[in-house]
This record gives sequence, structure tokens and C-alpha cells, in this order.
Amino acid sequence: MCELLGMSANVPTDICFSFTGLMQRGGRTGPHRDGWGITFYEGRGIRSFHDPEPSVESPVAELVRRHPIKSHVVISHIRQANVGDVCLANTHPFSRELWGRMWAFAHNGQLDARIFDLPLDFYRPVGTTDSEYAFCWLLGEVRRAFPEPPDDYPALIAFIRERCDSLRQLGVYNMLLSDSRHLLAYCSSKLSWITRRAPFGHASLTDAEVTVDFCQETQPTDVVTVVTTVPLTDNEVWTPMEPGELLLLKDGLEIPING
Amino acid sequence: MCELLGMSANVPTDICFSFTGLMQRGGRTGPHRDGWGITFYEGRGIRSFHDPEPSVESPVAELVRRHPIKSHVVISHIRQANVGDVCLANTHPFSRELWGRMWAFAHNGQLDARIFDLPLDFYRPVGTTDSEYAFCWLLGEVRRAFPEPPDDYPALIAFIRERCDSLRQLGVYNMLLSDSRHLLAYCSSKLSWITRRAPFGHASLTDAEVTVDFCQETQPTDVVTVVTTVPLTDNEVWTPMEPGELLLLKDGLEIPING
Repeated sequence: MCELLGMSANVPTDICFSFTGLMQRGGRTGPHRDGWGITFYEGRGIRSFHDPEPSVESPVAELVRRHPIKSHVVISHIRQANVGDVCLANTHPFSRELWGRMWAFAHNGQLDARIFDLPLDFYRPVGTTDSEYAFCWLLGEVRRAFPEPPDDYPALIAFIRERCDSLRQLGVYNMLLSDSRHLLAYCSSKLSWITRRAPFGHASLTDAEVTVDFCQETQPTDVVTVVTTVPLTDNEVWTPMEPGELLLLKDGLEIPING
Repeated sequence: MCELLGMSANVPTDICFSFTGLMQRGGRTGPHRDGWGITFYEGRGIRSFHDPEPSVESPVAELVRRHPIKSHVVISHIRQANVGDVCLANTHPFSRELWGRMWAFAHNGQLDARIFDLPLDFYRPVGTTDSEYAFCWLLGEVRRAFPEPPDDYPALIAFIRERCDSLRQLGVYNMLLSDSRHLLAYCSSKLSWITRRAPFGHASLTDAEVTVDFCQETQPTDVVTVVTTVPLTDNEVWTPMEPGELLLLKDGLEIPING
């Protein structure tokens, strides 16, 4: 399996603290040695770092940890391979363009072989994972149903949720997805989230002896939500998601979804 | 304008030497301060680094220069903005997926405003440059003409060349393009290339006091071709391309194109 980390914020925010915790699980406190990746959105642009090496041993991961890259949406993933070789093409997050926006995707879980029977149209996988196949199918479905960006955003979200429900029928499907503005988190078995805002406090990583005082790092109006498969800190209250739940975040805040 | 650097090799090869020369032009020996990017192919996978900062000041560029990433195809670009703001979304190389392969693209030159009248279909730009627009148009044309990967590869190359000829009618269009196997270089005004193979010699960068002895760095069977807008070394013979010429490289070697 794998681990996921997502962030949505109302101001460009670095993810050094959370990423420091996550990367420990890529070979030190966790077994996810089969590569890692991270995608940062800056406006409509993305920068992605991918590496088939374990994150604890990767100079690129070390750079990401030390060099604060500020972003309003981040998706990260560390991999323990099940379907698909350990190679760059199989390293999440995956990305494709739709409507002139870059969509990024990462998946935790395993889908049974029936996933590869789903018909593909616009998007085809470059690698051999069930995850990238699921992303190509999902985004192709969105593109077919919404050839242009919809005015009715709730209809789009309901559509994505329905397709995620279908994917969950094929196995474990915890997902992070972004269209550059929103962060969507779909829970199949395990995802938790936390929103940090004023008054900010201290947080201590579970996986490394690192504590941060967010008061020193933030402005009083900052709002930042972090989503992850397993909570990264041991002194904060994370909200676990329910199987089948979709969380929609924009500018660091949850946007309520009807139904 | 901008500067381009491309590499095709028959074994995974690092580009530290050439990139060291190129990045000097991003603010030290050249005026291309408006961002830089590099895409490495590893098998079918890509890893890209993009930065809207000048390459001479970028910690990410420093990592790329010091950390040897081995690849069989590389495309790199440093930018001096003309059309489009300085931002991540406008930073080359651009990439899109076609036929389950990632295509990467970088452009040197400027196209007149008529470029934005060309009809787009499958692919749409995320940023606002003439370059990304041209790439989206070109790859959309390829997709329309070849919905599946063609058996007749020369027909594909002839088609791409014809479309590049059309783009050249709109201004200066020096291009590097890859489908993960081949590197295509199209010359509108300036591109030069060199193939290095045994017996290897020394090479000295024009833009930095760096000399390399390729004998020490290579195996006798290695073949590596480098393409760039302005030759990077001052003691080797580079072959300048003619306006309208397309160079097709695979595994480090030129593949002759009929016509």
C-alpha cells in the first residue's frame, strides 16, 4: 500500500513540516520504499518531483524537505508497490490536462484486475499501475460528461463522487485529486484531516523528533488543511473520514457537499 | 528569447556537464532570467523540474547540476520572457500524454499573434505563452491525424515537419520535442548539434571554467548527441542546422529523414 498527503491553503504555504513526517515512512518508520512524488500548484502551474528511490534516501526529497516551496494545493505520495514495477512511470502523483488545467492524482489502495477492463478514451496510462489506469478512466469520464468546465460545480463534484464509489467497488480506493483550485479527498478505508487556523499552536511529528510552533510560521488569517492516510502529528486532533466520504477543500476550508 | 538544450543517448547518461554550461546563461553569462526547466525521460516515465526563478540562483537547478540523473532523452530550456508572464505555468518544457506516452516540448523564438487563432481540440494551454499554445496545436494535429501510434513512423515525422514548417511561417520556431524514445529538433534560426562517441576527448564549457574528460565518464560503446541553440563548448566542432531542417535522434544517433 502507500501513504497520501494533501494540503489546501488560503495563502501559499510550504509543506516542509508535514513532508518531513511523511518521508520518514518511506523506508525509516514505514515500509514505503518504492518511490515517492509530490506535486505543488502555483497558480495554474504545477511543479512535480518524482523519484523511484526511497524517500529517506533521496537527495530530491531532501531538497523538498529543506527548500520551502510555497503552494496553495499540494499532493504527495509514498509508494509500497503492489501492481506495477518500481519505476518512474509508476510513481504518483499522476497528472493530465483537462480544460486548460492540470489535474493531479494520487491513490492509496489496491484495485482488482477488473479495473483494467474499464474503457479508456482520452487519457491512457504511461505506466502499468491500477492507480494511473483508474485516474485515466476517471478523468476521461469527467471529460466526456463535461467537455467544458461546468458552471454547476456541485454537479461535477457529485459526478466525481459517483465514479469514485464505482472504483471503490473494485477494492481499496483512497484518493487525492486536484484541478489546481480544489483538493478532493475520497475515503475508502483511511484518510484523516485537520484544519489549522488562529489561534495556532505547537505540533509534534509522530515519525520524527520535530516540533513546530505554527504561531511563528503563520499570519493570523492563514487557514491550512492537511489530509493524510495516517495522522502525522501526535498532539493534535485529526478528523477521520468515513468510507465513501468525499471531502472538498478550497483555500484551506471544507466546502460542504450536499447529499 | 530563450535557450534550448536537448540530449539523446544510447545508455542512461547524465547531463550535468552541459546543464552546468546552460544554467550560466540564466542570469550570469546570458540574460535568460525568467525561469528554467528540464525534463528527463527514464523509460516511459518523466521527471521534470520547473522553476520561475533564474537558473543561476535556483537551489533546484543546483541540485540538477550536482546530482547526476541518468536519462536517455533530456529536454531543457531557460527563458527570457516575451509572450506570457514570468510564472510556473509559463515555464518550459511543457508535457502532454498521447498514446500512453508523455510528450515533452520546448521552444525558442517568438510567434506572432496569429498563433492564437489556430484551432485547438484535445489539448489546451495552462499558461499564456505562444509556445505552449503551439505545442497544444501541434500535438492535437498529430492526435487527429494519428489516433493510434503509427506503424509508418516516417509518415509521422513528415507530418510533424510539415506542421513545424507552418509554425515557422508565424515567426521564429526552434523546437525540441520528444515522445520518450526519439528526440526531434526543428530549426528555424539557430540550433547546433554534436555527437560524442569513442574515441572520446576533452570538452571545455564556453560559459564556465569547467572541462570534462569524457574518457573517464563513458564506456567505449556510448553514443550521446547534444543539441543546443548556441554551442556549449569552445573546443569541439558543432554542426549548425539549416532553417527548416528537422533532426531526428534515437539512442544518440541521427536517423536519416527522406526528403
